[in-house]
Amino acid sequence: MEDDKDTLRILVATDCHLGYMEKDEIRRFDSFEAFEEICSLAKQKEVDFVLLGGDLFHENKPSRSTLVKTIEILRRYCLNDLPVKFQVVSDQTVNFPNRFGHVNYEDPHFNVGLPVFTIHGNHDDPAGVDNLSAIDILSACNLVNYFGKMDLGGSGVGQIAVHPVLVKKGTTTVALYGLGNIRDERLNRMFQTPHSVQWMRPESQEGLSVSDWFNILVLHQNRIKTNPKSAINEHFLPRFLDFVVWGHEHECLIDPQEVPGMGFHITQPGSSVATSLIDGEAKPKHVLLLEIKGNQYRPNKIPLMTVRPFEYAEVVLKDEADVDPNDQASVLEHLDKIV
Amino acid sequence: MEDDKDTLRILVATDCHLGYMEKDEIRRFDSFEAFEEICSLAKQKEVDFVLLGGDLFHENKPSRSTLVKTIEILRRYCLNDLPVKFQVVSDQTVNFPNRFGHVNYEDPHFNVGLPVFTIHGNHDDPAGVDNLSAIDILSACNLVNYFGKMDLGGSGVGQIAVHPVLVKKGTTTVALYGLGNIRDERLNRMFQTPHSVQWMRPESQEGLSVSDWFNILVLHQNRIKTNPKSAINEHFLPRFLDFVVWGHEHECLIDPQEVPGMGFHITQPGSSVATSLIDGEAKPKHVLLLEIKGNQYRPNKIPLMTVRPFEYAEVVLKDEADVDPNDQASVLEHLDKIV
Repeated sequence: MEDDKDTLRILVATDCHLGYMEKDEIRRFDSFEAFEEICSLAKQKEVDFVLLGGDLFHENKPSRSTLVKTIEILRRYCLNDLPVKFQVVSDQTVNFPNRFGHVNYEDPHFNVGLPVFTIHGNHDDPAGVDNLSAIDILSACNLVNYFGKMDLGGSGVGQIAVHPVLVKKGTTTVALYGLGNIRDERLNRMFQTPHSVQWMRPESQEGLSVSDWFNILVLHQNRIKTNPKSAINEHFLPRFLDFVVWGHEHECLIDPQEVPGMGFHITQPGSSVATSLIDGEAKPKHVLLLEIKGNQYRPNKIPLMTVRPFEYAEVVLKDEADVDPNDQASVLEHLDKIV
Repeated sequence: MEDDKDTLRILVATDCHLGYMEKDEIRRFDSFEAFEEICSLAKQKEVDFVLLGGDLFHENKPSRSTLVKTIEILRRYCLNDLPVKFQVVSDQTVNFPNRFGHVNYEDPHFNVGLPVFTIHGNHDDPAGVDNLSAIDILSACNLVNYFGKMDLGGSGVGQIAVHPVLVKKGTTTVALYGLGNIRDERLNRMFQTPHSVQWMRPESQEGLSVSDWFNILVLHQNRIKTNPKSAINEHFLPRFLDFVVWGHEHECLIDPQEVPGMGFHITQPGSSVATSLIDGEAKPKHVLLLEIKGNQYRPNKIPLMTVRPFEYAEVVLKDEADVDPNDQASVLEHLDKIV
């Protein structure tokens, strides 16, 4: 369905952690190279937009160098004369509550050809008196569409309303819900408190019923943990969803998995740069090209080529005949052999 | 000469110190309001461009909130559909050595209607491995033209070449030299070392000799100090200059003063926000509308209305009959009366 005027094509990625290891002489450009590859894939595949699942930045206060590099990449890939072939038909001042209050490609003073939509993660979450995220800087520059930022209010459980970005391309209509990172414990409590999280549905219109919308949620939370309080149970998510993009988990489990009894599938793209020494980070990294037509979708996984290969192995010293676990020299000698 | 197609009209301001007192409940918006007034004057007076003399930011690492507010103001005033009526005819990759290497209004993906040219000051000077200034962030966003950034090289005196931005409007030709802040002691030594500072002159062209250019320098240094090592002597500046914009000194001495024997005039616009408790800061603040036609110029000073009035008075306790300088209660009582 490549050239179909009714097919919405989205490049989905998450956890780019721009600026990760920026002080390391060897790895300092890794995060930027992977992000550039993602943007380049978006251009090459001629997608309608890029959807990011949070932690675009590694640090809550990214360095000047990281900010400049990020702005440069976004400017080179997102600003061009290509036509944007979809419309945002929801109230844009509600979706994008910055000073300008509109989706970036509608600004008459910028040629945005590749829109990027993103939520924040736990690394680039809003803070300070003005409750700003580093992503707000990119949003002020009109380089990204930052959505899913909630005002949690006082110290109680709080109440939030998740308003979708309503996207139309030809006959395809997509309701894109975003939920920027909230502390897992708190979001858990909210999901268990009646009316604390309100999912706003599109209003019925002539010729378009609520069920005609394809519903996507992008969130950035812990997924499966031994302690269920510090993770979000997939069964708390609303059943009207069709597709969930799960950010924060760095392991790439990109093939959409069905959640039994819930009626939706989850994709977990994983990070585009390995930030922790776990088995999950050593697997090949991918991004997802998601094609949606009506209520049907097709997921196409695309491997990332720039990601630095990362080997993970477990060594059980007692299983090694030649090694005395109590003799440091013997252990080091063995490790030298296998690394 | 309001509508003259040969008259270049520049709004000159300096030391806006955006973010100054941003944590003070009363004064937190002062710096932004003054900067917005400057931008608004530029729009109202329909100038060709704004020229800033450094210390646009108060902090070397401006807060997220300050960055966002600055970007918002620049975006609202500088991006519009108005035509830019002058040309930059020098090598733009030399003048603006960022990733994009051109003057911002020539970028095909932005509608820049009001260009801003700025050097850095001592508050927003470049730092770090990549030698970036906070102004580089604005430059990466294509919101300002950052010039006059020098690579001083190793630990010796160093050698710099100051390449002018060559501006043409109709028959008027202006060579705009920029020298971002360098530590006074070092710049002093450089000025006293032969060939250490090279002022690059425009090449002669058919129908245009070197003397046809009107030469402006914008710099950001201490001017007159008791210790001459920690200030720049006006007589070190080259005699071919016609006009100098002196940043860093916060007192508003905006009426151009002739430097005897040097052949140029100096304007010292002063800061747009009072940052120190000195007499000079209590005087009315102005910006300069500079109109240039051929080798003639007309300076028009414009008062800033948003600047918070700041009273300065000296109290000589021994001249006050009712006050005993050694009695704290008596001193406080007197101060209560006069403040």
